[in-house]
Amino acid sequence: MSANIKVGIVGGTGYTGIELLRLLARHPKVDIDCITSRSEKGTPVSEMFPSLRGVLDLSFTEPDINRLTQCDLVFFATPHNVAMRMMPELMQHNVKVIDLSADFRIKDASLWSQWYKEAHACPELLAEAVYGLPEMNREQIKQARLVASAGCYPTSVQLGFLPALEHGLVDTQHLIANCASGASGGGKSAKVPMLLSEASDNFKAYAASGHRHQPEIVQGLTQLTSEPVKLVFVPHLVPMIRGIHSTLYAPLKNPDISLENIQALYEKRYANEPFVDVMPLGSHPETRSVKGANVCRLALHRQPDSNLLIILVVEDNLTKGASGQAIQSMNIMFDLPETTGLDNIALLP
Amino acid sequence: MSANIKVGIVGGTGYTGIELLRLLARHPKVDIDCITSRSEKGTPVSEMFPSLRGVLDLSFTEPDINRLTQCDLVFFATPHNVAMRMMPELMQHNVKVIDLSADFRIKDASLWSQWYKEAHACPELLAEAVYGLPEMNREQIKQARLVASAGCYPTSVQLGFLPALEHGLVDTQHLIANCASGASGGGKSAKVPMLLSEASDNFKAYAASGHRHQPEIVQGLTQLTSEPVKLVFVPHLVPMIRGIHSTLYAPLKNPDISLENIQALYEKRYANEPFVDVMPLGSHPETRSVKGANVCRLALHRQPDSNLLIILVVEDNLTKGASGQAIQSMNIMFDLPETTGLDNIALLP
Amino acid sequence: MSANIKVGIVGGTGYTGIELLRLLARHPKVDIDCITSRSEKGTPVSEMFPSLRGVLDLSFTEPDINRLTQCDLVFFATPHNVAMRMMPELMQHNVKVIDLSADFRIKDASLWSQWYKEAHACPELLAEAVYGLPEMNREQIKQARLVASAGCYPTSVQLGFLPALEHGLVDTQHLIANCASGASGGGKSAKVPMLLSEASDNFKAYAASGHRHQPEIVQGLTQLTSEPVKLVFVPHLVPMIRGIHSTLYAPLKNPDISLENIQALYEKRYANEPFVDVMPLGSHPETRSVKGANVCRLALHRQPDSNLLIILVVEDNLTKGASGQAIQSMNIMFDLPETTGLDNIALLP
Amino acid sequence: MSANIKVGIVGGTGYTGIELLRLLARHPKVDIDCITSRSEKGTPVSEMFPSLRGVLDLSFTEPDINRLTQCDLVFFATPHNVAMRMMPELMQHNVKVIDLSADFRIKDASLWSQWYKEAHACPELLAEAVYGLPEMNREQIKQARLVASAGCYPTSVQLGFLPALEHGLVDTQHLIANCASGASGGGKSAKVPMLLSEASDNFKAYAASGHRHQPEIVQGLTQLTSEPVKLVFVPHLVPMIRGIHSTLYAPLKNPDISLENIQALYEKRYANEPFVDVMPLGSHPETRSVKGANVCRLALHRQPDSNLLIILVVEDNLTKGASGQAIQSMNIMFDLPETTGLDNIALLP
Repeated sequence: MSANIKVGIVGGTGYTGIELLRLLARHPKVDIDCITSRSEKGTPVSEMFPSLRGVLDLSFTEPDINRLTQCDLVFFATPHNVAMRMMPELMQHNVKVIDLSADFRIKDASLWSQWYKEAHACPELLAEAVYGLPEMNREQIKQARLVASAGCYPTSVQLGFLPALEHGLVDTQHLIANCASGASGGGKSAKVPMLLSEASDNFKAYAASGHRHQPEIVQGLTQLTSEPVKLVFVPHLVPMIRGIHSTLYAPLKNPDISLENIQALYEKRYANEPFVDVMPLGSHPETRSVKGANVCRLALHRQPDSNLLIILVVEDNLTKGASGQAIQSMNIMFDLPETTGLDNIALLP
Repeated sequence: MSANIKVGIVGGTGYTGIELLRLLARHPKVDIDCITSRSEKGTPVSEMFPSLRGVLDLSFTEPDINRLTQCDLVFFATPHNVAMRMMPELMQHNVKVIDLSADFRIKDASLWSQWYKEAHACPELLAEAVYGLPEMNREQIKQARLVASAGCYPTSVQLGFLPALEHGLVDTQHLIANCASGASGGGKSAKVPMLLSEASDNFKAYAASGHRHQPEIVQGLTQLTSEPVKLVFVPHLVPMIRGIHSTLYAPLKNPDISLENIQALYEKRYANEPFVDVMPLGSHPETRSVKGANVCRLALHRQPDSNLLIILVVEDNLTKGASGQAIQSMNIMFDLPETTGLDNIALLP
Repeated sequence: MSANIKVGIVGGTGYTGIELLRLLARHPKVDIDCITSRSEKGTPVSEMFPSLRGVLDLSFTEPDINRLTQCDLVFFATPHNVAMRMMPELMQHNVKVIDLSADFRIKDASLWSQWYKEAHACPELLAEAVYGLPEMNREQIKQARLVASAGCYPTSVQLGFLPALEHGLVDTQHLIANCASGASGGGKSAKVPMLLSEASDNFKAYAASGHRHQPEIVQGLTQLTSEPVKLVFVPHLVPMIRGIHSTLYAPLKNPDISLENIQALYEKRYANEPFVDVMPLGSHPETRSVKGANVCRLALHRQPDSNLLIILVVEDNLTKGASGQAIQSMNIMFDLPETTGLDNIALLP
Repeated sequence: MSANIKVGIVGGTGYTGIELLRLLARHPKVDIDCITSRSEKGTPVSEMFPSLRGVLDLSFTEPDINRLTQCDLVFFATPHNVAMRMMPELMQHNVKVIDLSADFRIKDASLWSQWYKEAHACPELLAEAVYGLPEMNREQIKQARLVASAGCYPTSVQLGFLPALEHGLVDTQHLIANCASGASGGGKSAKVPMLLSEASDNFKAYAASGHRHQPEIVQGLTQLTSEPVKLVFVPHLVPMIRGIHSTLYAPLKNPDISLENIQALYEKRYANEPFVDVMPLGSHPETRSVKGANVCRLALHRQPDSNLLIILVVEDNLTKGASGQAIQSMNIMFDLPETTGLDNIALLP
């Protein structure tokens, strides 16, 4: 019997932090060694998150590089611009790291700077960082020291387009991703537009002229095809807590291909993926069907007299879109069955 | 001083019915003569809709053709397949009618049958019926005996695309309308998927392979251009009560045209429209900004390196998308200032 | 024809501010002269509140005592601790003031200090200030220079208990007010617990060991009876935007009195009140039935084998619980029909 | 190694049914043999509940007494009036039964008839049926053949009052339970008042003159004290899916007892209960802190100058209030550790 994985979490006061704790607390092969927060130092995690009362006897501590370097694995559940500053020292000590922030997702430091409005603090590790979308990069994740876990929107969009691009079915220059996210995607910081009184009983698009996740998605899709990729991505805010729904549009190169054929290719591609569910033709996946579960569900549609392939994709932005997916990568890195600790069933209703 | 308009409402127990009552009860030029419901005959409207307690002293009555024919105007707030059966007799008596259902919106009876799965009961009046979207058909509405008030989704999609099509700016064969509606769009009948426990904290597409409103929209857009129109329309269900948000995509014919130019054309087109608000470039209209108001707001976007014009449109599906718009047509038909009784300000927050 | 009332609003960026604007913008006897906000100086109100686009052409200005003193009436829509600092100067200039904050509601300055944790800045005006609950204090409001408009919870609790106390029906030492409010009652400032992700799909009590509105309610109830009043008040947070629901419990002194008799007393007491609606016995008032309307609805219940009178009361916390009620007081102060500008029908659904 | 428990579920199409499936599908000692539904016979459970896709390969079957009698345990997740008709035959075959409906909760058949408006079909088994609230009746559950699992409201109210009554701290004749439930408590049948458009953004009481759960609660509380119990119980509907919040009021017999003392008695009483969490004094339990978890959390309050003990209690109505609690009883009946399969952590946010 091998020892458990000793895990540290940097920045655990946000929603990806509590979601990591919820999942890791029941993971049979993990010991949570520490969870850091400068501002909440000393606060028991169960005081901030009463759902953890009686579950986790742990308090937030100040980030301590010595303690972190004694872990087998460190998760970063921080906003961007934190992981990239601590990364060099962690790498020196051979700690494995899974970064849930955006710091190492984009390979091109200048493109990163353009969207995040500052210089990248650690460009020398960008090449080594493995993009943490297991369904695309499982083999590299296995060997990785540093995994840049895929973003919430990008996960759903890439998994939705993946088989179509791998098979060259669609015109990659005219892709549209019309996406909608629950409010937890906006994080736990106090902002007026995310108040219940502002965001509930309401619907709106945001960043419709360009959103930071667009280059991450394009980079991922480009890996799947030899053709140039152009994508218009428009996110929307839904008055719900968890969930992402992506409605994807792609012109079919060959309008004579049947939807049944495409369905078969999708089913075959994901047949062995434990966390991707291709629903029967004509289905409409609902975000609630994956609430709290590390699952991405999708379904295909096509309208009469149209050459557009329509792909509907749902995931829980905090689970398959963030913390669940990060644990999936951890399982791969530590040679555990990929589903270990991730068999939660969605909470429905 | 002219007498008030004597109004009858057929089928007032649903959401468009209560919305008509809310607005007409404060309309200075209207007397509500009767509101019919076979099943609720005898029930005071304020018992079914407690918001009307102390406001309207009226009970539901059985539909009585003699009483209706003595009205100046009859609204149909019924499901489809009711108005078309009563219409011949009403027309014989020279009553004006505004039908909020789908019965007379589509000019082609066989196309109607294809989507509504039954024969049209009154094809002889289809040609005469004026499509009730005042911003497109104001002059015809003025003369109309029978107005087929525009549908909720179609109103937002048509008002969003209208200036672009009138000016020939976009490729009309590759239009996409990605729309989202609050649950009141599904009506007040008891259906499991519309229960709070099913539909709240959730998001999903529906009818993604084809929806009844698609032909209505295409018919309207076709009126605006000499080119063939192709439209993919995908509706979604938002966990909110009122509101429609449409995210429209249209390829620009001339990618060199500036968004500022298009903005100017939109502003000019709608400058004199009291109920259409073109927001500044870069805005993101929110459905709550029109909650309960007879207003359609829209904003334009374009992403770097893309030739897609993105149009964001919001309306209240029950107001500008249904009952408010019907009253707007009434005002036009009876030569009243178009805003009479329609100056409600949206309820925000 | 008399001139309109020239109105200034101090602190209009919050929810009572926008609600004042929504109602005053359609009030036929009011001109809004200015609305102040230090932080938003220069911002058009319609930029902060897009529901006002095309309705109000007004920008926030810095509070300017000279401009305010030229108004006929100044509303304070500020947090506590603002009005009491500006009040002496306004009173000197004979401006009438309606304060929607808590500064002048409690007559006893030391009691105020105990709950608000600071000294009262203007105790000398406490005696003059009239408590702005028209159904209790209509005559004093008529003559008032300074009205301290009643709080949201206190309005519903006092209107619910009022007839029972006036008629001496209940034991005033064992009153319970179990209340629930929508999130807008918490204001528009950015606080983590009021985020949609925290407060939606959730229910909780708060301040269960004692809440600031308790002394205000007790003071009001004491006015209605010669007996000592004891009240336990427990507020709860409901995942909705607007609305207060109060469930009141009071032991009947005479268990033999019939509920029908009590109902008759309630109906008689409120027969001429335009904004209080006593529903039929056995009714369950819903907050949505008063959404956006200046109405308080209530209903009486009693359970078998119990001597507790149960009173269910609803109001919109921003309308009858705040801004609508303030305008009701304004109408009284300026000798207008009390319902002027306040005939909005609740938005249902 | 002992064999797994072979489980049958009667009536699995509702919310307690899907919740049983969610929990039992991951229970290490259970095999689900069959789930019945006359109307959905042949439908895969994962078609009705897409959250179960890939989890459970099971279809609804017609209720078959032969198959059910071969199970070790049958759960009834039916409306009332079903279990009591099938019970005699099941008992003859020595199948153990846990009934989640109301059929066997009330010991007095005539009292049952009074509230459920029909004769009880199986009064002869009422005496044998054990009331399934493990924290009160653990020893009897151990030996039971037939467990009548406690109702959702009754669980929270009884667990809240229990230590106070056992220690004779409060006047049992003046108890009040002011409770609030999410919409899933109303079940999955299609009813207009439970539509999202009716029930969201709204709050109301219901059955305020008397509710069916009142006699069940009184019966349970009576078991805890030698004094007569009188309880006023008023339920409310909250616009959320899951969760019950009970605000309990009880006059202290001895006003000089300190809240700290009462807290100590509560903590001691529940020290060994795995599913009851006494929070620190002054806490406000939130329903979301138990979403999907088999946990009841409570906290004590008392207001200045009042002799009322205030107890705040939360639970998930479908988990600790229904299916989780039923499985807790199952674990006891089959001599498994009580927490087996019930260690889910609440889904927060």
